[in-house]
Amino acid sequence: MGVVIINFKAYKEGSGERALKLCEMVQDVSAKVDDYIAVAPNFLDLPEIVSKFDIDVYAQHVDAVGFGSHTGRITAEFLKEKGAKGSLINHSERRLRLADIDFLVSKFKELGLISVVCTNNVATTAAAAALAPDYVAIEPPELIGSGIPVSKAEPEIVENSVRAAKDVNEEVKVLCGAGISKHEDYITALDLGADGVLLASGIVKAEDQRKALEELVGLR
Amino acid sequence: MGVVIINFKAYKEGSGERALKLCEMVQDVSAKVDDYIAVAPNFLDLPEIVSKFDIDVYAQHVDAVGFGSHTGRITAEFLKEKGAKGSLINHSERRLRLADIDFLVSKFKELGLISVVCTNNVATTAAAAALAPDYVAIEPPELIGSGIPVSKAEPEIVENSVRAAKDVNEEVKVLCGAGISKHEDYITALDLGADGVLLASGIVKAEDQRKALEELVGLR
Amino acid sequence: MGVVIINFKAYKEGSGERALKLCEMVQDVSAKVDDYIAVAPNFLDLPEIVSKFDIDVYAQHVDAVGFGSHTGRITAEFLKEKGAKGSLINHSERRLRLADIDFLVSKFKELGLISVVCTNNVATTAAAAALAPDYVAIEPPELIGSGIPVSKAEPEIVENSVRAAKDVNEEVKVLCGAGISKHEDYITALDLGADGVLLASGIVKAEDQRKALEELVGLR
Amino acid sequence: MGVVIINFKAYKEGSGERALKLCEMVQDVSAKVDDYIAVAPNFLDLPEIVSKFDIDVYAQHVDAVGFGSHTGRITAEFLKEKGAKGSLINHSERRLRLADIDFLVSKFKELGLISVVCTNNVATTAAAAALAPDYVAIEPPELIGSGIPVSKAEPEIVENSVRAAKDVNEEVKVLCGAGISKHEDYITALDLGADGVLLASGIVKAEDQRKALEELVGLR
Repeated sequence: MGVVIINFKAYKEGSGERALKLCEMVQDVSAKVDDYIAVAPNFLDLPEIVSKFDIDVYAQHVDAVGFGSHTGRITAEFLKEKGAKGSLINHSERRLRLADIDFLVSKFKELGLISVVCTNNVATTAAAAALAPDYVAIEPPELIGSGIPVSKAEPEIVENSVRAAKDVNEEVKVLCGAGISKHEDYITALDLGADGVLLASGIVKAEDQRKALEELVGLR
Repeated sequence: MGVVIINFKAYKEGSGERALKLCEMVQDVSAKVDDYIAVAPNFLDLPEIVSKFDIDVYAQHVDAVGFGSHTGRITAEFLKEKGAKGSLINHSERRLRLADIDFLVSKFKELGLISVVCTNNVATTAAAAALAPDYVAIEPPELIGSGIPVSKAEPEIVENSVRAAKDVNEEVKVLCGAGISKHEDYITALDLGADGVLLASGIVKAEDQRKALEELVGLR
Repeated sequence: MGVVIINFKAYKEGSGERALKLCEMVQDVSAKVDDYIAVAPNFLDLPEIVSKFDIDVYAQHVDAVGFGSHTGRITAEFLKEKGAKGSLINHSERRLRLADIDFLVSKFKELGLISVVCTNNVATTAAAAALAPDYVAIEPPELIGSGIPVSKAEPEIVENSVRAAKDVNEEVKVLCGAGISKHEDYITALDLGADGVLLASGIVKAEDQRKALEELVGLR
Repeated sequence: MGVVIINFKAYKEGSGERALKLCEMVQDVSAKVDDYIAVAPNFLDLPEIVSKFDIDVYAQHVDAVGFGSHTGRITAEFLKEKGAKGSLINHSERRLRLADIDFLVSKFKELGLISVVCTNNVATTAAAAALAPDYVAIEPPELIGSGIPVSKAEPEIVENSVRAAKDVNEEVKVLCGAGISKHEDYITALDLGADGVLLASGIVKAEDQRKALEELVGLR
């Protein structure tokens, strides 16, 4: 019913061989539910995951440059060629300049990639929505990795972010993140008007990753 | 009638002793017209200019931090105490992260400082307007320092920026910049709906700075 | 006997009116001892402090650009014109790229400004010394603001840094920082071969700033 | 006889399918000469190139973080697990802070990865050598992509860089880059004391990439 994007970050449990196992599990669980479950691994793991699994793969970041004399950069065109579905943009651990977010959202539209622009509060959610990305993902920084679900601790942030985004641009979808790990919190997020959730440690660093994901989507 | 903010940048002609002379001239010209003419000198020159001249002084930049263990940073509180009227924020030569622009706009509101958020196109103007700053200043980067006035070369950018900003937030005022130096271009900008202009080299690096400013505001 | 540079950071207690009072006290204490005591206030306070007090004033940071189209930047030339003695460069709260540190050290030499390049361990101290600045100031980041003096907790870092710096360039002087506030720690630093200390909170945030500085230099 | 590292940058001609063809050619040429020829593709192409070809593969960049809550970052550990031989560090298009260069060089030593630290002049070469990387690669920025070979235009920079590096640390090997494309320039670089060259456009953007590489290593 909802959207679930799992950010693998630079977690040991979400990289290399562990990333492949994690994706196998995600693919399994995904087949049993109607929710749209996608993953965001690091750049080095991304191509193999795209080719081996039947799940949508997002990058965690992309650089605001095109082809050319840029060393150590990943462009939108590279992501497209490797089969990525889209990318997180402006994650709180990889903030971008406003002009660069706009550059990327436009470029993604041209290339048919899905843009997920991360924000930190209601005002920046409205600002990001004005750029017309596919998704805005609101994550109050103080709750990231805290285990305290934003949909429970600050429901008004989710509600107001949804309203602010839709006021600016009706078509923008809204995810919420930070602290979400239980089914109840996920459902609350949807009830508050969000289209889904963005999570990381709640799944990737869970002692039992499968159990964590199954619980999240209500299979347990 | 309109707003004119002059960015002194790190120009030799707009720093140290030359900055003081330039401000004396600006004060002179300002007294003869109804336009609101303000200056944006570098941090080191700012306090003396505030204390010596009867013109509004803006910083060129401000850091998104508060009091604390931050070395080499200028906070909004410092600007306030020194008597600055406000600051440029996110100038194309000093781009900021979206979350930091929002932090500064909010902080400025609390402190009673005027925020002038610079943007590069219609989309980022709408995004910046969503943060509710006092001004958005749109400057197409390709025209900065070009001598080609944005109000002439790309009037639709000015018009669309004004409309986009007002659609998001009616109270936001819009400046336009890049390539403006003649009275005609300034008037055109106002006719297109802008509240004024942001300039730099057109005045600061003019052979005759007084003549350049007088021409801009229609005194010659 | 030694060098004492006090970094005012963005501390409330070291900015605006409080900075002026602090400098008056530093000037007082300085007159009673042989130590070289200098201050590093923020950019906005720097010019007034230079003009009012008979102590050497350093900037906390300087940008690696010259005159030109740079907004919100402070150049070495600006510092020189305002009467600054030199600047901290690459402080742990304002790290710079290697090429920019080199640019600044060279520019400072041309202009007759004193360069104080901050480093975090023995290896980066040797690297910085290879650029031939006037001072290298080694501050283990984990001890900054900790109240645990580097000269006591990790005397071998101080000793090895001095040796590493001198091995590369005999003329480079070495300061040490982080956690220093007592006379004993200062003396230990000198005994370990350092030419002095760089401090901040130990003086600026002390309940009684005068008492703190007098104790440091052995007046109490 | 010498070392040749080819940086694919974000060139269209060096990414995706084109990167694979380029590597096949490099592998071919490499088999015919004694020179050590290695490639530095972008992150997304790196794993497949490692697995398909018998040539050493370097990353173009690596982030100064370990495992953890870091989004959009590539760690040294990730590179190691994917079979990269090492990485360029501090390329002129991806400059790093001094402390981060040191962090990476140390981490690479632990992990058995080869560090190639890029620098821009004699002073920064000495500084980088003080960190004891495997290689320092000196590239005067004004010559990058210019077609003017550093070994011809500024032989003294190559010679002095080699001397400066060895003075600080005898074991550090020195590459030179910028503008190199002919065999003669490569040989001159070796004669001046360099251990090899770092190139990019000279090969990757050549009309005939194979011809360009064969000429470089003296096969034509």
